[in-house]
Amino acid sequence: MEAWTRAEFEQKLRDKGQLYHIYHPFHVAMHEGQCTVEQIRGWVANRFYYQLNIPIKDAAILANCRDMKVRRLWVQRLLDHDGCVGDDTLGGIEAWLKLGEAVGLDRQDLLDEKYVLPGVRFAVDAYVNFARRASWQEAACSSLTEMFAPQIHQSRLDSWPKNYPWIKSEGLSYFQMRLSQARRDVCHGLEITLDHFTTREQQEHGLNILQFKLDILWSMLDSMSLAYQQNRAPYQGLVDNPIYHKGIF
Amino acid sequence: MEAWTRAEFEQKLRDKGQLYHIYHPFHVAMHEGQCTVEQIRGWVANRFYYQLNIPIKDAAILANCRDMKVRRLWVQRLLDHDGCVGDDTLGGIEAWLKLGEAVGLDRQDLLDEKYVLPGVRFAVDAYVNFARRASWQEAACSSLTEMFAPQIHQSRLDSWPKNYPWIKSEGLSYFQMRLSQARRDVCHGLEITLDHFTTREQQEHGLNILQFKLDILWSMLDSMSLAYQQNRAPYQGLVDNPIYHKGIF
Repeated sequence: MEAWTRAEFEQKLRDKGQLYHIYHPFHVAMHEGQCTVEQIRGWVANRFYYQLNIPIKDAAILANCRDMKVRRLWVQRLLDHDGCVGDDTLGGIEAWLKLGEAVGLDRQDLLDEKYVLPGVRFAVDAYVNFARRASWQEAACSSLTEMFAPQIHQSRLDSWPKNYPWIKSEGLSYFQMRLSQARRDVCHGLEITLDHFTTREQQEHGLNILQFKLDILWSMLDSMSLAYQQNRAPYQGLVDNPIYHKGIF
Repeated sequence: MEAWTRAEFEQKLRDKGQLYHIYHPFHVAMHEGQCTVEQIRGWVANRFYYQLNIPIKDAAILANCRDMKVRRLWVQRLLDHDGCVGDDTLGGIEAWLKLGEAVGLDRQDLLDEKYVLPGVRFAVDAYVNFARRASWQEAACSSLTEMFAPQIHQSRLDSWPKNYPWIKSEGLSYFQMRLSQARRDVCHGLEITLDHFTTREQQEHGLNILQFKLDILWSMLDSMSLAYQQNRAPYQGLVDNPIYHKGIF
């Protein structure tokens, strides 16, 4: 099988946007203003587990990369999410905590991962484990769902103030700051991917990796859908306050 | 906090059986004879991914264990699932393939992991990753859902021939052979656990590990429930034949 051209391969990667979680029933309901306060809180608390793991994932990529030039660019992702000492710019994790407070969640509950559903944890942990075990180029490829992120962030900025006026607007700063950061990150991740996956077999492997990441995002919302839309969180009805396992590492 | 006695700790571990996946709505429906042919096939094909990963998980445990006496006993699990050269006894994986054929699935489709849902893959992979990164004693503790397994296997042997007469009875040999194997494995896993987790803090960590394993089993059925009971497999409606990521390692 002949390799796709650089432009063809990029288009194949972009076409994967058809399966982005923006089309998940839970996300559609959220966008259309149909979510209850509890559903929004459930989403914010569970998605925070993903946010918490972004710097861990990026540190794993750095730890597998012996190319200093790449590390110099990639480390910006850690700084974006963790924030910098001596820089007042809000880090991504701190910005998400402010979103949590804006929807009425307790900061410490978020940090304690109190509401994290097992299925969400397994999906997010799969992303971190992949970054640990794959090459840094493969892990960079898995980050390319960022190509589709500006649209989802913009849609929240456009629709939430109207649909969920009870959420204080300063809580939305995460979505605002990610608009430009995600666009910059995509340029770097895409360049690595187009440079690295050059045979047809490699390119198909790259598409499989991007599909893996799409499956993670979709699977997270599946768990939230069961728990918060269908009242079918794990062990519902068996115990009053189901206790899920805590992080074990 | 004072440590529990050995007997008290064992009882706490056994009490976790309240949250075993035997009580999951999908499993309850399966036990009561309410599953369609497609639902049974979906369960068999997805659970096969778990079966495929048992020897990988056990090999990871062996690779972390420097105690030859423990390895000598633990290696029996690999032999049980993979089968032995020169021994005609059916291995567990082969027995599950026969179950697959008995419910009308293609052997190669099972080996290709064709129907494995992303959420099932993430949950099972979490188990393997835990065995890779935890101590062998922690991993042994995570295997203790086997305490509850004989009951679930027996219930299938009792109810399936009546409820699903279209499944050829030789397909049920996996459940039969696991009755005695699981009981033997429990003795060893429980002894390791009761010996190793002795302070109260360690004992609570052990319960957390067992909860992790319960969460895996429950989460697998959650994904199957969405896909096969609710017709809400990932990307349903977005594409005709959703393609999930293939195993990437």
